[in-house]
Amino acid sequence: MQFFFRPRGIALIGATANPRKGGHSILTNLRRGFDGPVYPVNPRYENILDVPCFPSVAAVPDPVDLAIVFVPGPKVPDIIRQCAARGIRGVMIESSGFAEAGPEGQVLQQELVAIARETGIRLWGPNCMGLVDARRRYVFSFVTPTIWDEGLTPGKVSLIVQSGLLSGGFLIDLMTHGTTGISKVCSVGNKVDVNECDLLQYLTEDPDTEAIGLYLEAIPEGRRFLELCRRCPKPIVVLKGGKSPAGAEAARSHTASLAGDGAVVSGAMAQAGVVEAAGFKQMVDICRTLAEYPEIRPEARGRVAILTYSGGSGIISADGLHALGLPLARLSEQTLAEIKKIFPDWMPVSNPVDLWPAVEQSGAQMVYTAAARAALADPEVDVLFIHAFSGGFDLGLDLKEVADEARRRGKPMVCWLLGGREAARHFQLEVQALGVPVFREIPRAVECIKAVFTPRNRSVAPAGAPLVPDNAREMVQRAAGVLDEHRAKQILDACGIATVAEAIAADSAQALAAAEKFGFPVVAKGLLPEAVHKTEQGLVRLGIASPEALATAWGELHAGMDGKGEILIQPMLRGQPELIVGALHDPQFGPCVMCGLGGVMAEILEDVAFAVAPLSRADALALIDRLKTQPLLNGFRGSTPVDREALAEILVRLGDLMTACPQIREIDINPLICVEGKPVAVDASIFVAQ
Amino acid sequence: MQFFFRPRGIALIGATANPRKGGHSILTNLRRGFDGPVYPVNPRYENILDVPCFPSVAAVPDPVDLAIVFVPGPKVPDIIRQCAARGIRGVMIESSGFAEAGPEGQVLQQELVAIARETGIRLWGPNCMGLVDARRRYVFSFVTPTIWDEGLTPGKVSLIVQSGLLSGGFLIDLMTHGTTGISKVCSVGNKVDVNECDLLQYLTEDPDTEAIGLYLEAIPEGRRFLELCRRCPKPIVVLKGGKSPAGAEAARSHTASLAGDGAVVSGAMAQAGVVEAAGFKQMVDICRTLAEYPEIRPEARGRVAILTYSGGSGIISADGLHALGLPLARLSEQTLAEIKKIFPDWMPVSNPVDLWPAVEQSGAQMVYTAAARAALADPEVDVLFIHAFSGGFDLGLDLKEVADEARRRGKPMVCWLLGGREAARHFQLEVQALGVPVFREIPRAVECIKAVFTPRNRSVAPAGAPLVPDNAREMVQRAAGVLDEHRAKQILDACGIATVAEAIAADSAQALAAAEKFGFPVVAKGLLPEAVHKTEQGLVRLGIASPEALATAWGELHAGMDGKGEILIQPMLRGQPELIVGALHDPQFGPCVMCGLGGVMAEILEDVAFAVAPLSRADALALIDRLKTQPLLNGFRGSTPVDREALAEILVRLGDLMTACPQIREIDINPLICVEGKPVAVDASIFVAQ
Repeated sequence: MQFFFRPRGIALIGATANPRKGGHSILTNLRRGFDGPVYPVNPRYENILDVPCFPSVAAVPDPVDLAIVFVPGPKVPDIIRQCAARGIRGVMIESSGFAEAGPEGQVLQQELVAIARETGIRLWGPNCMGLVDARRRYVFSFVTPTIWDEGLTPGKVSLIVQSGLLSGGFLIDLMTHGTTGISKVCSVGNKVDVNECDLLQYLTEDPDTEAIGLYLEAIPEGRRFLELCRRCPKPIVVLKGGKSPAGAEAARSHTASLAGDGAVVSGAMAQAGVVEAAGFKQMVDICRTLAEYPEIRPEARGRVAILTYSGGSGIISADGLHALGLPLARLSEQTLAEIKKIFPDWMPVSNPVDLWPAVEQSGAQMVYTAAARAALADPEVDVLFIHAFSGGFDLGLDLKEVADEARRRGKPMVCWLLGGREAARHFQLEVQALGVPVFREIPRAVECIKAVFTPRNRSVAPAGAPLVPDNAREMVQRAAGVLDEHRAKQILDACGIATVAEAIAADSAQALAAAEKFGFPVVAKGLLPEAVHKTEQGLVRLGIASPEALATAWGELHAGMDGKGEILIQPMLRGQPELIVGALHDPQFGPCVMCGLGGVMAEILEDVAFAVAPLSRADALALIDRLKTQPLLNGFRGSTPVDREALAEILVRLGDLMTACPQIREIDINPLICVEGKPVAVDASIFVAQ
Repeated sequence: MQFFFRPRGIALIGATANPRKGGHSILTNLRRGFDGPVYPVNPRYENILDVPCFPSVAAVPDPVDLAIVFVPGPKVPDIIRQCAARGIRGVMIESSGFAEAGPEGQVLQQELVAIARETGIRLWGPNCMGLVDARRRYVFSFVTPTIWDEGLTPGKVSLIVQSGLLSGGFLIDLMTHGTTGISKVCSVGNKVDVNECDLLQYLTEDPDTEAIGLYLEAIPEGRRFLELCRRCPKPIVVLKGGKSPAGAEAARSHTASLAGDGAVVSGAMAQAGVVEAAGFKQMVDICRTLAEYPEIRPEARGRVAILTYSGGSGIISADGLHALGLPLARLSEQTLAEIKKIFPDWMPVSNPVDLWPAVEQSGAQMVYTAAARAALADPEVDVLFIHAFSGGFDLGLDLKEVADEARRRGKPMVCWLLGGREAARHFQLEVQALGVPVFREIPRAVECIKAVFTPRNRSVAPAGAPLVPDNAREMVQRAAGVLDEHRAKQILDACGIATVAEAIAADSAQALAAAEKFGFPVVAKGLLPEAVHKTEQGLVRLGIASPEALATAWGELHAGMDGKGEILIQPMLRGQPELIVGALHDPQFGPCVMCGLGGVMAEILEDVAFAVAPLSRADALALIDRLKTQPLLNGFRGSTPVDREALAEILVRLGDLMTACPQIREIDINPLICVEGKPVAVDASIFVAQ
């Protein structure tokens, strides 16, 4: 991919002297920053902007690795063939008019796919804004050259974005404010060939990139993407567009690609140690924070010391931290005593540390520095949250010494800043140059502290073949369609998943024999082919307490099915909690496993979590931990705690089954009842593709 | 209060020629903006800044209504006495060194309280930053005069803030950015006399104020505050500091005032139609939005039409709306057809409406205007969310026609804006002058749309005396301490709250008689004085199914209590859901009623809601609606829905009981089991002050 990022020479096809056109902007941008030769290609000009122009790609001299194409869509396929013939290795297609532009464009895009396959040339785009590299000052994009006016602020964060806006308008916004630096922005467009995976792989190795943010509307190579995230040692933040039903609808019409279900995406991201964002600026803010603090000390638990010049800001910060589950540090006696030295006599020291009275007495610089040193030295403090002000009643703070001390101690430090428009901007630049992220709103600072202390557990996918016994595989091979609960549980049982005892009763005598074996009370269910909603269809009789009641129930079920189905007898299991577990094939991530609270609460709380199969045991335990209601599993008021290892084992086996038998489309175990802490599958269905 | 806001003349006590002192800043600010006479008072000067200076308050000529005091704390009491003697009606004490500054300051503050009571003079502060009125250009504050450099942007929003920061540094930040206008900012400080209630009352009538934001750490006159909010026709937004346990700790040490529990405050605010904020800028952003859209059409349901120039932004907006429960508008056929006219042929129309291809074809102005007119005319659309860009590839939009049309149709319109630093600021000012709030981040715009469409149901407190039967009052009068569940339920029963049938069994024969009357299975409980945790103490026997089991249970309980307590027999009620309801005295809001999901889920989900008693029936129903888990009450899978009217009636009666009998400190009904939809109190305790 190096020819895209560091080409020795660039051919610009579609260069033009018309300053209102993108082909002119690209040339301007290349001339202002690119340090290699640029070859405009356009048969209508001899020169553009004093650069000699070539009539065709074939005529372009060496060295040339990369072509940037900005000509109308229908002309693109032929241009790419010419590029391939000329030995150009990569083409960045910035033209639009492809899959995003209706059926004709889709045909055109298919042609690009074919050419790439045929010639081996790598294609970036189409319908994209190319690449901006603020460190090298490479702007391979038609983004307006006004972007140069405020300078391209270099930074440690690289972005991969499936939206022209984020590499265009948003970038202009970021760059002109000047307070957020960027390393590379890669606009992937329609991703006909080069996609987020290729770019993530490149940026993982890129020495100029210390954190990676991605805005994605679809992740077609979901599993490859996850593997790359798992292996990337740099922090990764993803903003996934189209996670809501409404958003997904917009995604389809925008990129003609299928957006994944929100819960599956979130599960997959958590599994791969990726932080999720909810907005553009928030994504970049989290990225720039994690770029400064990619790793935390193993013993750090996110305990925050707040140094403020305003009691109110301290309180709002403490409230915000509490809402996100971050603890305020309990300052040690020594720290309190140290800070007391700089405080007025009457003032007690607590956290948040309100420095204002001390500042009035002794000046901000001394007071802030002393308090910060004391807090940083405190083993109870994991992170320092400093409130600053610049302009107006300038605190006159120089945070260099404090920032150095924080870094020495391996403790993150973030700063919230108010101030006059210009003064605050300058202070922000100054402090950020010290490696301290500065924010203009307390809640954003708190969100970013949260991201630093969110464990980025990059579990490794289990090695080796999925563990599925041969008899289970054989049962699946013989099956088709929606399996009734008895057949489904036979497969689960073969996989080593505990299921309720049960027997088919061909007549009421067999029913009685089964019931006597299990012990009353029992349950009788009518199994009809393809009848998924047994309860609603009147095919379930719970709590049958006597032989007489059983005979009646058997008779009613038998009559109700017109003699078509079978009747199943089970003991009536009772236990808490009732869970639901399942599995499905996600179009982006493939086989996935789900776990959640069952019954009525499942529908109200929507508290389910997903992970991509196959799962390691650690994956499965982490999946369970992601449930909001997971404290319920610990046992309440004397009830037996759920055996998490046993539950995790069920999730692992479900994942293995899905992986080994791709013809299984969906599995539902609902309910999975925890009897004395042990989860048992009481009802289940499996859908096997025909 | 008019003498604080529009004084005819001002005496400034503590004026000084030293430009580094607050007394100099106040004078500078007064001279730059105040249109009446200013009389500096300081015996050390003849003139300050060319203004004649007076040796004492007594020497100040007429007219003078207001004194602003900025002298060291210990001198303040005497100054106030002089002001009272001079006939000055109000004093704004901006000095610090009072209750916030240790025990000596607390004594000093008590002296101020005494003087105010004695003389009738009104005191604002101390430890405050006074008043800024950006419309009149009155700055009665020592906030740095640099605030004038960028002008004081006038706006429709007034703030009442219990934090110097918000009337100082934060104001400088807002003002120098210039994009957020303010009407008045009132810094209340230690609230020795004038408090948020007095100011809210004033601003309710103030013609220059169209929305009111409050930052409060304590609401000591909680009930008066609620009544004022309920009666105020203007939108009110509250940021309550100290809602977390950690935040509350900070609040105590900061303002020496008790901060209320978060859930109680939230309940009270919801009851009074107040919107809650979570951050300073967010509070102001919600305020300025609600100032533009204080009322919505009764039929509006928050259905949003998004007009964007970027597919990605449309998707992120749709995701954000979905996350806050706001629906995307389903555009009508007519609207789709109208917009289709301006779209390229291949492009389908959906919401979010991605206008970019049309903009490329026909220019932004025509396309945006046509699409906006079509969307505004659509009865399915309640609010227009416009994405704009300015600077760089300027869209060149003029939104005046669209804004006028939106206002004509009574449909709110908000704008999200990206752009170059200066260009975006100018566009923002331009568009906001049209009455359209502009935001720089999508999530903030979405939060503000949400606030517009959050019903601000300002229920009226019930008139008339609380309805509590005489026998209930008598039982309470005879009680003291923690009442056991039998005594507690007798009081509840007397109030008309359904309780489980039960009987005290002095021996096992009585127990059997009761059980036979109720029918097996029954419950036996040992009642010991002050034993609140019966289950943990082994004093509860559930599901007793036979006379033999009952005899055993009675014997065990009897033995377990050493013959001290009593034994209670109840039928074993079963039903779903189990609720918890209760009541308490909040230090700020007085008697409050609570309702929530009971049992294990209560502890995990913390899903409870409060309201201030007495409750109207509407209050009680709204309280139930605020529970996240309230859909559970609708009945699931064929179970009987909970009788919400009956549940509301219980909450009303609990509130009446708390109001009528202030000696009751706490009531717990746990569980309140819904049997066939009817809530029945199964266990209860009441704590009566001794």
